[in-house]
Amino acid sequence: MSLIDQAADFFRQQQDRICAALESIEFRDGRTGRRFHEDSWDYSGRGGGRTRVLSEGSAFEKAGVNYSDVSGEFSADFAADLPGDGRSFRATGVSLVLHPWNPYVPTVHANFRAIQRGSALWFGGGADLTPYYPFQEDVVHFHRVWRDVCRRYQDVVDYRRLKTWCDEYFFIKHRNEHRGVGGIFFDYLKPTLTPQSTEFVKSGDDRVFDFVKAAAESFLDAYTPIANRRIDLSFGDRERDFQLVRRGRYVEFNLIYDRGTTFGLKTGGRIESILMSLPLNVKWVYDHRFEPGSPESKIFEYLKPRDWADETIDS
Amino acid sequence: MSLIDQAADFFRQQQDRICAALESIEFRDGRTGRRFHEDSWDYSGRGGGRTRVLSEGSAFEKAGVNYSDVSGEFSADFAADLPGDGRSFRATGVSLVLHPWNPYVPTVHANFRAIQRGSALWFGGGADLTPYYPFQEDVVHFHRVWRDVCRRYQDVVDYRRLKTWCDEYFFIKHRNEHRGVGGIFFDYLKPTLTPQSTEFVKSGDDRVFDFVKAAAESFLDAYTPIANRRIDLSFGDRERDFQLVRRGRYVEFNLIYDRGTTFGLKTGGRIESILMSLPLNVKWVYDHRFEPGSPESKIFEYLKPRDWADETIDS
Repeated sequence: MSLIDQAADFFRQQQDRICAALESIEFRDGRTGRRFHEDSWDYSGRGGGRTRVLSEGSAFEKAGVNYSDVSGEFSADFAADLPGDGRSFRATGVSLVLHPWNPYVPTVHANFRAIQRGSALWFGGGADLTPYYPFQEDVVHFHRVWRDVCRRYQDVVDYRRLKTWCDEYFFIKHRNEHRGVGGIFFDYLKPTLTPQSTEFVKSGDDRVFDFVKAAAESFLDAYTPIANRRIDLSFGDRERDFQLVRRGRYVEFNLIYDRGTTFGLKTGGRIESILMSLPLNVKWVYDHRFEPGSPESKIFEYLKPRDWADETIDS
Repeated sequence: MSLIDQAADFFRQQQDRICAALESIEFRDGRTGRRFHEDSWDYSGRGGGRTRVLSEGSAFEKAGVNYSDVSGEFSADFAADLPGDGRSFRATGVSLVLHPWNPYVPTVHANFRAIQRGSALWFGGGADLTPYYPFQEDVVHFHRVWRDVCRRYQDVVDYRRLKTWCDEYFFIKHRNEHRGVGGIFFDYLKPTLTPQSTEFVKSGDDRVFDFVKAAAESFLDAYTPIANRRIDLSFGDRERDFQLVRRGRYVEFNLIYDRGTTFGLKTGGRIESILMSLPLNVKWVYDHRFEPGSPESKIFEYLKPRDWADETIDS
């Protein structure tokens, strides 16, 4: 079983595991929640995917968890900037965006993927948090989970680099504003084993693949404690309105800057799977402003990158 | 008074005239409407503009009418594709996007502008209609107004070309779908007078400037009869929901493809004036579908370009 086959298996299992955990949040404490709807799709006979979306549930307004494993040909332009040889590629991964109803629960994005092109194989991915009304405790927790995973694999990844890469990537240039409070981002991470190896890869055989697995497995640890802590906080129209306006920023980032989105749209990917990351409801209010010191203004302090994992949590 | 000074004056007057007419729709039949809010702004001391936005009125959910007159330097890349010489430019124009509450009233966009670069001056602009629940009578009326203006100036413009240009421009490539039912679009239209002329341009002195004026003056004729005819039709959640989903397409076009938007965002234009074109409320529903034959499915027939101006209106 080749390395990329094993990665594809792993990502598909993660989709199952993550969806099950999110559904358990949906049905927590006897709530009338919803389950994910699944669409299996083909990529013109060259692989396919399973898109799972949960809409208007009890906890999540829109939650999308996508698994895909597709083969194709890179354009010459696109291929020029990538490792490997030839134009044929295979890409597999799991990606998710969760938009909760409650403005006190952050939106979150994560994605873990493997790409093979000729003799080269590399991993990419990451996770980042986008709160509306941030709590220091939540932001510190999220970052610590990623720092701790990276530390366990410091022979293959450097936490500082992945944290900074995330801050730099999720930046809305025209607003001069970060999309959220960050997390980690990585790409072009090559396994130590050759991708042509057909041995079954056991834990410890490939530290890079182990890191990617550990990171993907950490997603629920990073996010669910935050969701569970905030999901019952009461909110009103004011908080909801602010959340809808901030979601406009999310849409602006994804449609203008996100490489996955713009690449997918330009290369004939499955539109509904690509745009499932967009929130259900969004609002663009002209020249929306907040009073300094208001609960809404707090987010702007949080959007400036900081060493969150090292902070002492205020009591 | 130079030609571009006269164009700037004309565009500013059109902003006044259009806003007054839209406010009269807001207050029609004793409604409790709203007036435009105006923000005057500077472009780093090199001109500026007047952005006028009306939000949550009686007729319009969000209406933006922007006037600007700015000077600056084109980047070398950008300048390479443009007429004229040197990097300095002056650009003035009026642009508007109206998003009504009622899903039976179409969204509309129009924009008329003049750009001077060194010894070259050219006009651009157009208008296009984006219905949700289209009426043949409305679409035919809109196109006939533009056809008739173009016919009066057929010595300087070709209606077929401007109509086709509009269909080609307002196309959402990743959806393989036009943004709306079209209208006209033109660019690089050079006046017959030299732009250095400082004579006051009377009607007939410059047929190109006359055309641009006639087109801008036709906007209200093209749109207000449609708005007035449909504004009192009753609608429910179903129609509103469909409108919000279709508005997602409008956002996708503007953020991904619109040259004015992407150029403005990349060159440090005033964000709030650029993004005032985005609707107030928008919805992205995963894999939204309609039954063939439903009132919602009708729009897809209308999104295919047709010779609307030549159609006989069905009774």
